[in-house]
Amino acid sequence: MSSVRTPDPNNPSEPAGGWLTEGELAETRARVPILYVEAVPVRVDADGAVREVGTLLRASMSGEMTRTLVSGRVLHGETVRDALRRHLEKDLGPTALPQVPVSVVPFAVAEYFPWPGESTFSDERQHAVALAYVVPVSGDCTPRQDALALDWMPPRDIAKEEVLSEMEGGRGALLRQALASVGLLG
Amino acid sequence: MSSVRTPDPNNPSEPAGGWLTEGELAETRARVPILYVEAVPVRVDADGAVREVGTLLRASMSGEMTRTLVSGRVLHGETVRDALRRHLEKDLGPTALPQVPVSVVPFAVAEYFPWPGESTFSDERQHAVALAYVVPVSGDCTPRQDALALDWMPPRDIAKEEVLSEMEGGRGALLRQALASVGLLG
Amino acid sequence: MSSVRTPDPNNPSEPAGGWLTEGELAETRARVPILYVEAVPVRVDADGAVREVGTLLRASMSGEMTRTLVSGRVLHGETVRDALRRHLEKDLGPTALPQVPVSVVPFAVAEYFPWPGESTFSDERQHAVALAYVVPVSGDCTPRQDALALDWMPPRDIAKEEVLSEMEGGRGALLRQALASVGLLG
Amino acid sequence: MSSVRTPDPNNPSEPAGGWLTEGELAETRARVPILYVEAVPVRVDADGAVREVGTLLRASMSGEMTRTLVSGRVLHGETVRDALRRHLEKDLGPTALPQVPVSVVPFAVAEYFPWPGESTFSDERQHAVALAYVVPVSGDCTPRQDALALDWMPPRDIAKEEVLSEMEGGRGALLRQALASVGLLG
Repeated sequence: MSSVRTPDPNNPSEPAGGWLTEGELAETRARVPILYVEAVPVRVDADGAVREVGTLLRASMSGEMTRTLVSGRVLHGETVRDALRRHLEKDLGPTALPQVPVSVVPFAVAEYFPWPGESTFSDERQHAVALAYVVPVSGDCTPRQDALALDWMPPRDIAKEEVLSEMEGGRGALLRQALASVGLLG
Repeated sequence: MSSVRTPDPNNPSEPAGGWLTEGELAETRARVPILYVEAVPVRVDADGAVREVGTLLRASMSGEMTRTLVSGRVLHGETVRDALRRHLEKDLGPTALPQVPVSVVPFAVAEYFPWPGESTFSDERQHAVALAYVVPVSGDCTPRQDALALDWMPPRDIAKEEVLSEMEGGRGALLRQALASVGLLG
Repeated sequence: MSSVRTPDPNNPSEPAGGWLTEGELAETRARVPILYVEAVPVRVDADGAVREVGTLLRASMSGEMTRTLVSGRVLHGETVRDALRRHLEKDLGPTALPQVPVSVVPFAVAEYFPWPGESTFSDERQHAVALAYVVPVSGDCTPRQDALALDWMPPRDIAKEEVLSEMEGGRGALLRQALASVGLLG
Repeated sequence: MSSVRTPDPNNPSEPAGGWLTEGELAETRARVPILYVEAVPVRVDADGAVREVGTLLRASMSGEMTRTLVSGRVLHGETVRDALRRHLEKDLGPTALPQVPVSVVPFAVAEYFPWPGESTFSDERQHAVALAYVVPVSGDCTPRQDALALDWMPPRDIAKEEVLSEMEGGRGALLRQALASVGLLG
């Protein structure tokens, strides 16, 4: 049985013990909520004010374009901080220079359910609980998984309904919360 | 020279020393930012989930209806907590039974400027900096100043553009931040 | 194989699907971090200021007295808010009248590891990640599990080293963070 | 009448209108709480974890050594963000490269009173309310006012009673809150 994701040889800090087979992961997802971290990448000016917000573009199976955030599981034995850094590197590339926040208290706790109605957020694979962070990045971003591209937009543009509705799993609401948390939801 | 507001004989905890004449207040407003507290009153269910959000209705001079939040100055010598409780009582009446938060760290810092462009928020009288809180109230609210009425609405309805645009001083954005902070900005 | 905890017939809202056999739970604990909620019960005055902090007393196997907080798993399919309310009722009894916070953003994210060195917090059973809240309770508390008693102390007394060192799993540090979050760490 | 501080010709962004004469400032301080920003400078590693905490050393009139934080007024017409950046530059020098936080929601609101008993914090000059932030700095710090030096210490060392008691105005408690907010109060 193959593993869910190919272990990444470039990332020596990935805790090998955390990887599960597809069968183990499916079984586990039916038993407990799965802990995730999510990050909204932003560009800031010298004063720390957010100038641009990044979303990851992805082509769905049906050819439709969707948007998502930096996102991934916290593995067994891994700290939240390490998971956040690992997924930032996985989704934005090794030269993004993210400023991982000094506190792991998130700006929002996003709860994803596989059935509708329970929450704003949905994930057909699982019940997931994500700790969400706004993360300034100052380097070059080179998304390297799933043929993703990274799209930077000013806060004003990204808050538009047509953009937010492209976010996967209801993450438009999470993006709004992110903008609100930095005082940029007009 | 008359004082800006009539001292309230029913409220013995009001720090008398904090009252300024109109002239003193005008002079002070030209010199330093004035510290405010603001509160978004909410009704919660037994689980603490927000079911309704309150706004104070006010008829403007021109007969137009506007909405605002619980709001007022922190006086000299007064703690933030005392100021918050005092203004909740002033604006919602003595039987509102507000649950003043255990922490005075606000969900947002709203900056009001007398000139446009600096911020989302404006106040023609002054540069004010407001610490904003979401405050559950469980009792009967009887707004008693400025012929205000208190209007309760479900989060979904209050987030509508036509409601938010009625908020004074750009507080529609603050209300959105409040909804975001409790996970209710869909 | 018996279940880890006896299902509670008095609590109809417990999501039956979340219960795991001991074997399933042990297996799951070896695969992913387990999501918990924790609550620091407090007594507040009319202004919302914390006057007393509660800890749950427990006699260990060896007869030693230890202290802990309201704590428990988030079950599969259960919201964080529901889990918090359920564990408050389980640990403080049905008449505690807890004020579950309006926001599920925690004051701290406590990471427990089964091995030393990774974190301030330890849990020999598992890697657990707990979202921690300060929760005012206004009713009567009647702890009903594990022969626990609830001990109320003023913030000043509970912050003492000899009390904090009695907290299980390093939760003395979490209690300090709770006090800091409400501005009461002198 | 001389101004309280010498205007700084190197800092063109200082809002000239905010400066008050000593007489005006004294008068204003007797009328309203004065809004401050404070910053705890920290050194972080690549994961954003705090490795060192900085305090500003100062020799008091009596020759005693005291410690303080980056601190200063928000001027009339100035945003909180601009005030924070200005005081970071004033106290840490122009090459400190501070990462001003993306959100101006503080980790703590510190209330200073000129009389004892009201609060943990005291300031004999005034009633001040400070919004406090933890700010990573990655550049070279060259404190340039009041013959200050900047002292970096690991979190574990700075949390010691003998260090915290050297903090001016009771800021030892604020430093503890800062450590708690980043999960480093053991």
